[in-house]
Amino acid sequence: VAAQNDKELKNLLNEFHYADIAEILDELDLDNAVYLIKLLDSETTSDILTELDEDTREKVLGNLSAKEIAEEIEELDTDDAADIIAELSAERQKAVISEIEDEEHKAEITELLAYPEDTAGGLMAKELVKVYETWTVAGCLRRIRGQAKEVTRVHSIYVVNKEEKLIGRLSLKDLIVAKSEQKIAEIAKENVDWVNVHDDVEDVARIMAKYDLEAIPVVDNDQTLLGRITIDDIVDVLKEEAEKDYQLAAGLTQGVEADDSILDLTRARLPWLFLGLLGGVGAFIIMEGFQEAFNQYKMLFFFTPLIAAMAGNVGVQSSAIIVQGLANDDLKGSINSRLIKEMLLAALNGVILAIFLFLFVWIYNNEIDKALAISISLVAVIIIAGLIGTFVPLFLDKRGIDPAIATGPFITTSNDILGILLYFWIAKLILGI
Amino acid sequence: VAAQNDKELKNLLNEFHYADIAEILDELDLDNAVYLIKLLDSETTSDILTELDEDTREKVLGNLSAKEIAEEIEELDTDDAADIIAELSAERQKAVISEIEDEEHKAEITELLAYPEDTAGGLMAKELVKVYETWTVAGCLRRIRGQAKEVTRVHSIYVVNKEEKLIGRLSLKDLIVAKSEQKIAEIAKENVDWVNVHDDVEDVARIMAKYDLEAIPVVDNDQTLLGRITIDDIVDVLKEEAEKDYQLAAGLTQGVEADDSILDLTRARLPWLFLGLLGGVGAFIIMEGFQEAFNQYKMLFFFTPLIAAMAGNVGVQSSAIIVQGLANDDLKGSINSRLIKEMLLAALNGVILAIFLFLFVWIYNNEIDKALAISISLVAVIIIAGLIGTFVPLFLDKRGIDPAIATGPFITTSNDILGILLYFWIAKLILGI
Repeated sequence: VAAQNDKELKNLLNEFHYADIAEILDELDLDNAVYLIKLLDSETTSDILTELDEDTREKVLGNLSAKEIAEEIEELDTDDAADIIAELSAERQKAVISEIEDEEHKAEITELLAYPEDTAGGLMAKELVKVYETWTVAGCLRRIRGQAKEVTRVHSIYVVNKEEKLIGRLSLKDLIVAKSEQKIAEIAKENVDWVNVHDDVEDVARIMAKYDLEAIPVVDNDQTLLGRITIDDIVDVLKEEAEKDYQLAAGLTQGVEADDSILDLTRARLPWLFLGLLGGVGAFIIMEGFQEAFNQYKMLFFFTPLIAAMAGNVGVQSSAIIVQGLANDDLKGSINSRLIKEMLLAALNGVILAIFLFLFVWIYNNEIDKALAISISLVAVIIIAGLIGTFVPLFLDKRGIDPAIATGPFITTSNDILGILLYFWIAKLILGI
Repeated sequence: VAAQNDKELKNLLNEFHYADIAEILDELDLDNAVYLIKLLDSETTSDILTELDEDTREKVLGNLSAKEIAEEIEELDTDDAADIIAELSAERQKAVISEIEDEEHKAEITELLAYPEDTAGGLMAKELVKVYETWTVAGCLRRIRGQAKEVTRVHSIYVVNKEEKLIGRLSLKDLIVAKSEQKIAEIAKENVDWVNVHDDVEDVARIMAKYDLEAIPVVDNDQTLLGRITIDDIVDVLKEEAEKDYQLAAGLTQGVEADDSILDLTRARLPWLFLGLLGGVGAFIIMEGFQEAFNQYKMLFFFTPLIAAMAGNVGVQSSAIIVQGLANDDLKGSINSRLIKEMLLAALNGVILAIFLFLFVWIYNNEIDKALAISISLVAVIIIAGLIGTFVPLFLDKRGIDPAIATGPFITTSNDILGILLYFWIAKLILGI
């Protein structure tokens, strides 16, 4: 790049896939990135734009005029075009759209911009191959040659009636294998899966993954064919979804990456740490409250990190398995049966662990009453922690709140405090103080 | 099911998609599930088999004879067939394979069984559409009509030379749009992506997601075309991968589900809890060791849960972001630069949190030296925890170990102990004991 021998550079870059060029641009400084974007054809650069990091793209687009952006947009499929325009300010959106020359493309992009990002409408593309049930195979082949040129990948051909309502589908293969005088209505498969334009993208992803679909048509409430969603967009949805859940479980506000700035990372991490700090202060207050009572049993205070850790671990384990079950939609049975199962499970784990702890304290300390008090409290703490870990995500899900926030620091902190409180309370009871 | 009116039942089930029937069978008891499987055509049941839970499938297959299983297998694509056979015992594998009538199918399945599950070979199917570069478009269309009938979805057509080496690809669309007298070599796209049969499935998934591919050809070391991998299998790989990482972070040995038995769940959970128990015992021993020294500063012991929680949370946050960066292959720069960044980040977060903690202890207790000792220790603990959380996954990855095990209980427990030790040590230093 330094030498800026345009011709050589252009030839060199043309050898690369656009996803690789995007990776290179993400690492260059802005001036050089913009320089390269302007150097290449809009056919390549439009694809590169879709693959750039959001931050880099925002900066690059900031350096292009509305007309230049519109030229890139013209090369893109409607779904990618709408995604890029949606990232611009309202004012620039207008400017860019007015510069798009292809009136049909302009109308389609404007339509897509109206759908919320997390619905089927926000994910779909207008590009698809559509045939009418009354056409013949031969006529159909002839006419879809025109349509197919605009569509990067054909997947399915959608069959509609004269009111544009979706009534079936065909594969290119069916068309090639069929006799040329057959009517489309005869060879179309009628049981076509579809999603409504207002459906949640996560539901769309679940349906496509479950039925192994590579594309699904999108219809409105009247069954009118509006667009289609392809599996590559769903792969992105699934990846984002998994990353979001993972980050929430780790105590990170969603959407950060290792290469974000220290300030962005602080914003993602500090609120959860602050929650932990409050929990720690709560634990301090509880322990101070029990200070007098346990004056002769100071040793008990030294087990609070153990109790807190176990309560936290059990809570995260049980909530994670519920969150995952909810995400995969494979939880069966009532909340009560879940809670009973978790109680038995936690009791079994708790008793096994408590036996080890009892033996340790007994051997180390030779005071059977303390050993017993600590061990029995541990079992109780583990059971309660398991129940909370099971109940909270189920409860949040019923309320329509993302259960993934219940894993991680949220459950750990509340279980820490509750576990320590329970521990001292039960120990006090057993030791008869 | 109870009434067992065969005909009605069959008609009813034929209305459902096989993935839905599989879900129903997963919930039925074994007798009824086997009964239904035997009732339906092998064309439907073979698809159902691939969609069943592994546990249910194992039980159902246990109730079918080798010949019955072979009949199901005949209906399946080679990749699904090989996956199902791979789950059987070595002895039954042989029995089932010997019952497969179609010799070509048998040979292909045997070939696929030889590849390890986590390589491209273990994921690929033999079904694909292959054309020779010397064919014409018209001849090609005629001949692939035959091949395409066996292939559920065509995706790409792969172009090979006379030595069966992959040299390009075509889409069905290209073929339809081309003139019938053109040679395949003229219209084939030469820059075809491919993977080696020994490549790791996670790398294959990364490549397909990056380049938005819906199918990728698999070749051997001589570039001979062996099979192809389709995006629906990759969706499964990505989902499994995400679930595995999520479970490890939550302290679950991989692969459990909410509906597994209490014993299975105990096996997945107990080892990690035991690790936590050992950590807790370690914390106890450390605190006992400092007991004498801090006789006049008992209050300091009440902050150990806070210190442990902060060390754990920071460790999980920093390791999770590294694990995710490694999984997405987008970590740039050296380990040293990562550690420096984490140190700055942790120091910033630590100081902000320490100020709050200082104010709390000062106001609550009115002893500035204790408040200072606790707050300064907290900053040090957070920095060290962040560095460990960053270093451990990077180190494991360099060593070829899955860095995901470094999140969750592993990092929490080690950070708990180290944090508490550091806390008392620094506090002792500051208070001059």
